[in-house]
Amino acid sequence: MIIQKYGGTSVSTEAQIQGIAHNVAHLSAQGNPIVVVVSAMGNETERLLNLAHSLSPTPNRRELDLLLSTGEQVTSALLSIALQRIGCAAISMGAAHSLIRTRGVHSSAYINWVDELKLRRYLDAGTVVVVSGFQGVNDEGDITTLGRGGSDLTAVALAAVLKARECQIFTDVQGVYTADPRLVPRAKLLSNITFEEMLEMACFGAQVLQLRAVEFAYRYNVPLRVLSCFEECEGTVIDTEGVNMEDAEIRGIACNRDETRIMITAVPDIPGIAAKLLAPLITNGIHVDTIVQNIAAADSTDLTFTVSRLDALKAVEILRTTVENIGGGEILLDNTIAKISLIGVGVRTHTDIAARMFQILADLNVNILLIAASTMRISVIVKEEAVEIALPALHKAFGLDAAVSSADNLQ
Amino acid sequence: MIIQKYGGTSVSTEAQIQGIAHNVAHLSAQGNPIVVVVSAMGNETERLLNLAHSLSPTPNRRELDLLLSTGEQVTSALLSIALQRIGCAAISMGAAHSLIRTRGVHSSAYINWVDELKLRRYLDAGTVVVVSGFQGVNDEGDITTLGRGGSDLTAVALAAVLKARECQIFTDVQGVYTADPRLVPRAKLLSNITFEEMLEMACFGAQVLQLRAVEFAYRYNVPLRVLSCFEECEGTVIDTEGVNMEDAEIRGIACNRDETRIMITAVPDIPGIAAKLLAPLITNGIHVDTIVQNIAAADSTDLTFTVSRLDALKAVEILRTTVENIGGGEILLDNTIAKISLIGVGVRTHTDIAARMFQILADLNVNILLIAASTMRISVIVKEEAVEIALPALHKAFGLDAAVSSADNLQ
Repeated sequence: MIIQKYGGTSVSTEAQIQGIAHNVAHLSAQGNPIVVVVSAMGNETERLLNLAHSLSPTPNRRELDLLLSTGEQVTSALLSIALQRIGCAAISMGAAHSLIRTRGVHSSAYINWVDELKLRRYLDAGTVVVVSGFQGVNDEGDITTLGRGGSDLTAVALAAVLKARECQIFTDVQGVYTADPRLVPRAKLLSNITFEEMLEMACFGAQVLQLRAVEFAYRYNVPLRVLSCFEECEGTVIDTEGVNMEDAEIRGIACNRDETRIMITAVPDIPGIAAKLLAPLITNGIHVDTIVQNIAAADSTDLTFTVSRLDALKAVEILRTTVENIGGGEILLDNTIAKISLIGVGVRTHTDIAARMFQILADLNVNILLIAASTMRISVIVKEEAVEIALPALHKAFGLDAAVSSADNLQ
Repeated sequence: MIIQKYGGTSVSTEAQIQGIAHNVAHLSAQGNPIVVVVSAMGNETERLLNLAHSLSPTPNRRELDLLLSTGEQVTSALLSIALQRIGCAAISMGAAHSLIRTRGVHSSAYINWVDELKLRRYLDAGTVVVVSGFQGVNDEGDITTLGRGGSDLTAVALAAVLKARECQIFTDVQGVYTADPRLVPRAKLLSNITFEEMLEMACFGAQVLQLRAVEFAYRYNVPLRVLSCFEECEGTVIDTEGVNMEDAEIRGIACNRDETRIMITAVPDIPGIAAKLLAPLITNGIHVDTIVQNIAAADSTDLTFTVSRLDALKAVEILRTTVENIGGGEILLDNTIAKISLIGVGVRTHTDIAARMFQILADLNVNILLIAASTMRISVIVKEEAVEIALPALHKAFGLDAAVSSADNLQ
């Protein structure tokens, strides 16, 4: 049982779709049952988003889901046509086929149920099932999407239901690196990484995999393999067993530049004020991160946190109502920030990592705006322009320039 | 109760969608319940078709339906977003919402049932319902499309179910003309035309309305109004009452250049041979027209007919199997033909019309390849290059250059 997912950059052109069709047909001819999950072609999702935003700054999420889901439907139909053309039985399935039932808010719905029987019926007949990623249908019959990068989640959910040995995520990079190679030229490819480490990486900027997909894979113990659709490679395996875990204190450095810092000034300093302000955001599906509350004056406080830049305007709209009701000062936005995170199981045991990180940044004259930490991660929010110098310096100082990687092994 | 349908050229750009949103919001604010049916934006359907054909010369129709239906889904979501933006409650519905249930073959499915209760629930709440045209869902949960121009059928079916006073079809022309103005500069706009006449016009090349939509409107007596979305105009009303019907022997001249002539040579001359050859085409949803059988030799015959050019390759594929089974010679294709039809209730009573038509063509040295006729129409198949001279000559000879039209009335 093989589950493969192809991202947008790997299905940008007809030629790429034909190439994938040949690979899939070859595997199918060997008798493997195959499910292929596809994303929208190239920049189609951006194009559709731009159309929506040209008509409204805050398009309704139900309509947006209906709009964006078409991108993946197009790709799945085309791949199915390409497979049939070369004599490989294939059928495409989009949201309308109710293969994946969802619940929860539009644009980041949860998967409730997968129609395993429908999948097995086709797979048992030797038919390749091509699934439009990123989408499902809820109990009201509305198309819902699974959040940015949601095709990964589709693939993992199908792999979990079908109990596949691994879920292959084809992308435009060779796997998971110790840092973004565009920012850190000496970044190394990791041959293995644990779910927990990958969760922190995905959460804090390594955009190879959708965070929720990694969580889902972790919970259902679906090994993931991230690999390139452009080059032959072993890729990076993400599972419960790390390699050389004890050697490395830090496994990677992530950088997230897609967040906005929101500060609410002069809110009453009463118990539960943070919950009052943030709860309406969370119930609207907005993920709130790196929250810090400062005592600014005797009876008032400042609340600072970050949200995804995509959600920033909606967050401000919601906050404005709350602030009017419970009192408070200004709502300030800052888009010129970045979040740098050190990730690794070593963070748990090596308590000096945070201190060393802060010292390195201080030596570089980089001002730290916010700090957050978990057992496996330390994150700092800095001004965006600091990334260029801070990232390579941290990569070197924590011994990642010299990390053994599968890329080295292949040379 | 207002039903409006906007075709592809009227929803090509964001600005056009905004324009429609303003008109619809204005009507809605006056308390009118409104359903709007939309086509795919501009050339989106062509773009998707080209993508499919670049991957396969004969793409599977199930996959093609899934692919093409996305075009209308995009437009309905965008129009709904544009309406909400200006404060008009709106909801979009695509195939996935099971508003329209279908049966029959992919790419030209039949409408079985419309969920009137779902429509009324939103309409009663003052919400504009924006429906993705051209599509429905069948009992297997597959998306099916209603044939080329199928958004017209969607609009008519909704108008019938909701018992609307008229169904407004917005297009890029001012209404129905006596002939195609691009081919006949003296063509006139008709203010009224009967369903029967329009059926013949739609069937034989006046591509303002989908043929099946006119049939459906005729059967359920839904008056249609074809009008321009670019200019204020009264348009053409299509209903059971014609105006000046007794005056005009011929109401219009249609020209169809989207057909292919197929000739099968040397088939055995036995009873039922035409049915044997053509039945497999018809069961595959291919419309066969203008059939002529010639006795070529003592025991064999030639069968000639026309099909839509889109269906030609598929038709040949099906015919090849049949011809192998029952015997027969070559299958010849000719794409360089056009069908010219004279249409009007007068054909019934003025028996000399056919003779006059043939004489006019003979005087122009235009060779007639096939002839077909009904009570309200005479059609001839000619070489495509003859259209340019034949059409204006026939238009003039049958008194249409001088026809009274609503365009004249407005001047």
